[in-house]
Amino acid sequence: MAAAEQGADAVKEEEEQVVNPWEVSAGKGGIDYDKLVDQFGCQRLNAALVDRVARLTGRPPHVFLRRGLFFAHRDFNDILDLYEKGEKFYLYTGRGPSSESLHLGHLIPFMFTKYLQEAFNVPLVIQLTDDEKFYWKNLTVEESKRLARENAKDIIACGFDVDRTFIFTDFGYVGGAFYENMAKVARCVTYNKAVGIFGFSPEDHIGKCSFPPVQAVPSFPSSFPHLFAGKDQLRCLIPCAIDQDPYFRMTRDVAPRIGYQKPSLIESRFFPALQGENTKMSASDANSAIYVTDSAKEIKTKVNKYAFSGGQDSIELHRKLGANLDVDVPIKYLNFFLEDDDELEHIKKEYKEGRMLTGEVKQRLILVLSELVARHQRARALVTDEMVDAFMAVRPLPRMFG
Amino acid sequence: MAAAEQGADAVKEEEEQVVNPWEVSAGKGGIDYDKLVDQFGCQRLNAALVDRVARLTGRPPHVFLRRGLFFAHRDFNDILDLYEKGEKFYLYTGRGPSSESLHLGHLIPFMFTKYLQEAFNVPLVIQLTDDEKFYWKNLTVEESKRLARENAKDIIACGFDVDRTFIFTDFGYVGGAFYENMAKVARCVTYNKAVGIFGFSPEDHIGKCSFPPVQAVPSFPSSFPHLFAGKDQLRCLIPCAIDQDPYFRMTRDVAPRIGYQKPSLIESRFFPALQGENTKMSASDANSAIYVTDSAKEIKTKVNKYAFSGGQDSIELHRKLGANLDVDVPIKYLNFFLEDDDELEHIKKEYKEGRMLTGEVKQRLILVLSELVARHQRARALVTDEMVDAFMAVRPLPRMFG
Repeated sequence: MAAAEQGADAVKEEEEQVVNPWEVSAGKGGIDYDKLVDQFGCQRLNAALVDRVARLTGRPPHVFLRRGLFFAHRDFNDILDLYEKGEKFYLYTGRGPSSESLHLGHLIPFMFTKYLQEAFNVPLVIQLTDDEKFYWKNLTVEESKRLARENAKDIIACGFDVDRTFIFTDFGYVGGAFYENMAKVARCVTYNKAVGIFGFSPEDHIGKCSFPPVQAVPSFPSSFPHLFAGKDQLRCLIPCAIDQDPYFRMTRDVAPRIGYQKPSLIESRFFPALQGENTKMSASDANSAIYVTDSAKEIKTKVNKYAFSGGQDSIELHRKLGANLDVDVPIKYLNFFLEDDDELEHIKKEYKEGRMLTGEVKQRLILVLSELVARHQRARALVTDEMVDAFMAVRPLPRMFG
Repeated sequence: MAAAEQGADAVKEEEEQVVNPWEVSAGKGGIDYDKLVDQFGCQRLNAALVDRVARLTGRPPHVFLRRGLFFAHRDFNDILDLYEKGEKFYLYTGRGPSSESLHLGHLIPFMFTKYLQEAFNVPLVIQLTDDEKFYWKNLTVEESKRLARENAKDIIACGFDVDRTFIFTDFGYVGGAFYENMAKVARCVTYNKAVGIFGFSPEDHIGKCSFPPVQAVPSFPSSFPHLFAGKDQLRCLIPCAIDQDPYFRMTRDVAPRIGYQKPSLIESRFFPALQGENTKMSASDANSAIYVTDSAKEIKTKVNKYAFSGGQDSIELHRKLGANLDVDVPIKYLNFFLEDDDELEHIKKEYKEGRMLTGEVKQRLILVLSELVARHQRARALVTDEMVDAFMAVRPLPRMFG
C-alpha cells in the first residue's frame, strides 16, 4: 500500500486530466475515474462492501453509496471490521470556504457525512480551512473567516447533531495539540515530496507548503484533546471528494512514522456542472451550477436553459433513437438526488428508449431540486449565530457514540 | 534599505564565513563583523548613538553597548526618535530551547534586554521556539516543551519584571491572531526567497520553511491581542545576536506589505568559546563554555585549563613582549562581564605590556564569572513553576509602560 501510494504522486495525464485539491480538469471524455483510482492507489468501493454497510448498519445504504457516487476508498473495510467488533471511530470532513453560498456539489460530502454519522453513531469533526483559502485565493484574513462562518451555517443546515459534531476554523483552532501534530507531520515531509504530491512551484509562497499538515492532522484524535483525550489510537474515517486524496495519501504515509493510525477514506466522484462532465462549476459563472440560494424560478430557468441534454435534436429523432444517458446532465443530477430507485430506473429506461422527452426529465429534476433547495433554505434560515458558536465551542461532546 | 536587504541574501564567503540562524562558522581570522554588516545590510552602532541612549535614558549605557558588543542595528535611531517624542515601543527577544542548561553566551541577550526594559520602561515579549528545536534537532515535542520551561526559569532568573514581561512557547501560544499573522507573512515569502535567505534544500522537511513566519510575527503587536489590542502600529525593538538577522530581514521586507511597522533591531557579536573566536561553543563539549550550572571549581578549572591565552610561552618572553589581546579569551570575557571600565583598562594595559601574567588575568576572570554564576544560581533556585506559569499566563500586563 505504501509503495502504491508513493508511486501515485504524479497525476498529470497525457490527456491533460489533472486532479489535485486546487484543480480538476477532465480529458476529452470527462474524468476517467478508473484511471484515477489506479493513479492514486486507492481501492474501488464494490457492491460487496456496500452490502456489508447495509448489513452492519441495519439500514439501506445511502443513495450516494448504492449508485456508486462514492466510488473509491482507502481501508474503509478496516473501519467496518472494527465496527463489527463493537469498536468505535470518528468522522472527519471539511470545506475550504472560498465562496459566499454553496452549490449543490458542495452539499454532497455533508449530506453523505450526516448519513454516516447517523448510521454508525459516531462523532464528527468538520474543518473549515479559512487559512487555505487565504493562501490560495486573494482574500483577506477577515473575509476568509467571515466566509467560514457563513459556510458553517449551510453545513449546520444539513442537519448535524450539535451533541456529536465539532466544527472548527483553522484560524480559530490551530494551536496547542493541533499545532504539535502539524509540526510532527511537517517534519516527516520533505519539500521535494510535497512538490511531488501537490505540484508546488519554487515561486509559490511558503504558506502553500506549510498548509498540508493543517489538513492532515484532524485525521489524528490527539489533535482534539477536548474530544478524544486518552484515545490516541481511535480510527478516523474521512468522507471527501477524490480530489482531496493527495492530502490523505501524505497523511497515511506519515501516520505510522509518528505513532498514529492511518485514516480511512471514502471518496466521491465530482458533481457535474450543468453544462456537463467536461466543464467545471465555476464561481464566476452563476449559470454553471445550482446554488443553495437559488429561487425556484432560477432553478427552473437554469435547468431548462443550461442543463446539457443527451436527447436528440428533434422530437422525431428522439422518439426513434432515444437519449444518450452517458452525457445527459438531468439524469446525472437525478442520480444524485432522486431517492426512489424504481422511479429513477423507470425514467432512465423511458428516456433512453425515446418515450420520455428531455423536457419531461427536466421537469422532474426541477421539482426534485426545488424541494431540496427550499428545504435547505428553510433549515438555513433557522441557523443562528448562537448555533454556530455552539457547534464551534471547544467542548466535550455529550453524546459522542450514542 | 529594501534593496540593500534584498541583496544581502547570500552570506557564504570565499573564506567560508557562514552565519545563519543554525550555523556560525568563522573564516581563518575569526568572524569578520564588518563584512557581516555590509552583507546583511544593517547599520553600524556608532558612539554617537550610544551617547544618545545615555542621554535619553539618563543612565550610563550598558557595558555591552559602550564596549561595542552590541555593534549593529536596524532603525534603532527611529526607536530613539519616537522615545524622545514620548512615544512607546515594546521589546521582543527569544531563545531556541535546545539544551538543558544555558552557557554564558545564552545570557547575553537577556542581560541586555533586562537593561533595555528598565532603561526605557517598556513591555517585553520573550519567544521560546520549542517548535524550531523540534524541527531542527532530533527532539520529541515533549522534550522540546520541557526544555523550553527549564530555559524559562533561567531567563526569569535574569530578573525580568513579571508585570511587564510575557514569556511564551510556540507550542503553547501559536494560534488565533498569532497564527493569522503567520499566514499573512507566509503568503508574502516565496519558497525561492526563503531558500535565498535561509539556505534550505529541497530535501529538507517542510517544517523548516514553515517556521520563519513563526519567528517573524512577535515583531507585530497584533500578534498579542491581550497586550496590544488597538495598538497595531506600536513599534518593536529586537535585541538579538547577529545570526538572527536573516529572520528579521525577511520580517522587515514583509511588514509594510501587510500594513505593519518594520521592527527595529539591535544586534550583538557572538560570545566566544573558551578556545577562542574561531571555535564554537558546543553543547557536546562541556569544556568549550562556562555553563550557568557550573560550580566555582568547574569554572576555575575550565578557565585555567581551556581559556585561550594571548600571553607568551614563557614568563621571560611575556615580560618582554606582552600579551596579544586580540586573541586572548580571558580579556574577551572580562570585556563582557567586568563592569568597571577603569579596572578593565588597567588590566588590559598591564597585560598587554607584560607586567600582568595570564594567570593573574585568569584569576580575576574566575572571580568575576564565579560571582556571576553563583548569583544566577541563587536566583534560579528561587524560580518556581508557579512563577513560570505567571510569566507565561496570557494576560494583560499591569505595568506595561511604567
